[in-house]
Amino acid sequence: MATIAYGAHGADKPVERMSIERRAPGAHDVQIDIAYCGVCHSDLHQIRAEWSGTIYPCVPGHEIVGRVSAVGADVTRFQVGDIVGVGCMVDSCQHCASCGEGLEQYCENGFTGTYNSPTPDAPGHTLGGYSQQIVVDDKFVLKVRHAEEQLAAVAPLLCAGITTYSPLRHWNVGPGKKVGIVGIGGLGHMGVKLAHAMGAHVVAFTTSESKREDAKALGADEVVVSRNDEEMAAHADSFDFILDTVAASHNLDAFTALLKRDGTLTLVGVPEHAHPSPDVSALIFRRRAIAGSLIGGIAETQEMLDFCAEHGIVADIEMISAQEIDAAYERMLRSDVKYRFVIDNATMAA
Amino acid sequence: MATIAYGAHGADKPVERMSIERRAPGAHDVQIDIAYCGVCHSDLHQIRAEWSGTIYPCVPGHEIVGRVSAVGADVTRFQVGDIVGVGCMVDSCQHCASCGEGLEQYCENGFTGTYNSPTPDAPGHTLGGYSQQIVVDDKFVLKVRHAEEQLAAVAPLLCAGITTYSPLRHWNVGPGKKVGIVGIGGLGHMGVKLAHAMGAHVVAFTTSESKREDAKALGADEVVVSRNDEEMAAHADSFDFILDTVAASHNLDAFTALLKRDGTLTLVGVPEHAHPSPDVSALIFRRRAIAGSLIGGIAETQEMLDFCAEHGIVADIEMISAQEIDAAYERMLRSDVKYRFVIDNATMAA
Repeated sequence: MATIAYGAHGADKPVERMSIERRAPGAHDVQIDIAYCGVCHSDLHQIRAEWSGTIYPCVPGHEIVGRVSAVGADVTRFQVGDIVGVGCMVDSCQHCASCGEGLEQYCENGFTGTYNSPTPDAPGHTLGGYSQQIVVDDKFVLKVRHAEEQLAAVAPLLCAGITTYSPLRHWNVGPGKKVGIVGIGGLGHMGVKLAHAMGAHVVAFTTSESKREDAKALGADEVVVSRNDEEMAAHADSFDFILDTVAASHNLDAFTALLKRDGTLTLVGVPEHAHPSPDVSALIFRRRAIAGSLIGGIAETQEMLDFCAEHGIVADIEMISAQEIDAAYERMLRSDVKYRFVIDNATMAA
Repeated sequence: MATIAYGAHGADKPVERMSIERRAPGAHDVQIDIAYCGVCHSDLHQIRAEWSGTIYPCVPGHEIVGRVSAVGADVTRFQVGDIVGVGCMVDSCQHCASCGEGLEQYCENGFTGTYNSPTPDAPGHTLGGYSQQIVVDDKFVLKVRHAEEQLAAVAPLLCAGITTYSPLRHWNVGPGKKVGIVGIGGLGHMGVKLAHAMGAHVVAFTTSESKREDAKALGADEVVVSRNDEEMAAHADSFDFILDTVAASHNLDAFTALLKRDGTLTLVGVPEHAHPSPDVSALIFRRRAIAGSLIGGIAETQEMLDFCAEHGIVADIEMISAQEIDAAYERMLRSDVKYRFVIDNATMAA
């Protein structure tokens, strides 16, 4: 089954229109006509081979929203016409301890990523949401309960949303907790919205004075410009939890120092160059921790989508056509987006 | 009240006999004739000004065991003749949140260390257990329930014991848990004994092939020579908790890689030179954490002493005279001690 996609044939090649094959839906498969796909920073890293192991042609995209166009014989949870989502995973081993606990993102045999992962389907590696159609095992398909007109802005929830929701839940963010969100970009702007909706006191950290009002509009109770030492010092020893969404190398000590005793700084981005080595005494003298967190499991992703539908939460997006993907990457590199580009996949037919 | 002590008058001065003053016991004070004092690596760092802020004369020692020789009018928990211990703290603010929770080691106003901390007593800073007597507020005095002949080997429990006991308890080490102890020295050998007594499956990590049998004798179920990559790889993704007692700069990634999902690597030593910056992806892809832990609170120190008395646990020690302290420091620097030097304070009279 041929479908139109946008991808690249090499690290130094432009994103261009191509035809790819999707498998015919098997008994447990859901075939989706993709309406929108968010543009994640990971897409850029992968397609330009900034991470090891990119396989070409590379068709990125793991923030997928669309409509079911066919279902396999054994699919009971979905029917044709349903609005659904697909995130960063399209399969996992289903028998390891993590899969058993619904934490497929930590699958001990490695989950199957929505793009660039091995698959029996042609061409041997998965191809993502920069395409008109995708066929996914129903266990990895999410129900979307938002209103139809919100769907483009729902797409980024499938990666940026769950990547911030999962650690906020895991580290018990809620009423009475003081929570920091570092970096007000694609991930961070979702972190602020979600932590606010969870009832926490939310402090947004940004390096840009210009984002101060924006962060408040997103739901931050306070905004700290992290380059300002005095502003930072005023928050010493006061946070229960800080979620650091900044993938670029930076000084973690500035944030561990703001944690209370037993507080945790959780990182969700892998920097290209290592962060400066964190100060161990800042951990020891307050029993603080630095942790990491990866997206979220399928059940938790559904919980997040439902939570967002209930609280009226979507991403702040800028819609682009498929022909504008390379230009969008360049703007992403300059942080010139509030806060997520979303591809209107209908433009792929053009 | 003059008492004999051993200390130094400068960073490059030898440890020598000196006379110091102890305050007359106040209403809440316990006066202790010190029988034994353990020699902690911190003593060496402090007396040689390898940490900032050493005040001279410097009399180290915070692993103190002795006999009560006088009590203040309002002291009800102790009486003359009782065998007691004093650890790393002799006071704290008593009104912050951490003190309120019995976590005086994290006192938000800074606890008063047993040596080198400000005090109203002469000479203006605290002087530790390398002395014949000490006077301590009864809240910071611990009951020792071990047999009289074990007392020298009890002394190291007051720092090495509680520094390892507290994180093992905090991170829920017990039956069914696989626990690593990195470094088989003063702290690590206690960590192995304690984790074993708590019922965990204990794996000791050492750089020395020569410590393999020793570690088993201490209670390790398995011993891994951490320089051996294959031996390390066999334990990948398998630990619930790893306690790292090595204060020298080393590669933490070798140990985070051995943690299960949601496992924690806890550091208790501050390295002079920073560890290589830890690999963030090892944290993110298994939701692992790197944390720190500092000694333990007073209530927990009592719990640890009682646990050790019940399980027949003491440190493995080598007894020295007060005149041998400098020589013992030199041997400590070569890791030539199994596993803790303890001063026989009776030798101070000589």
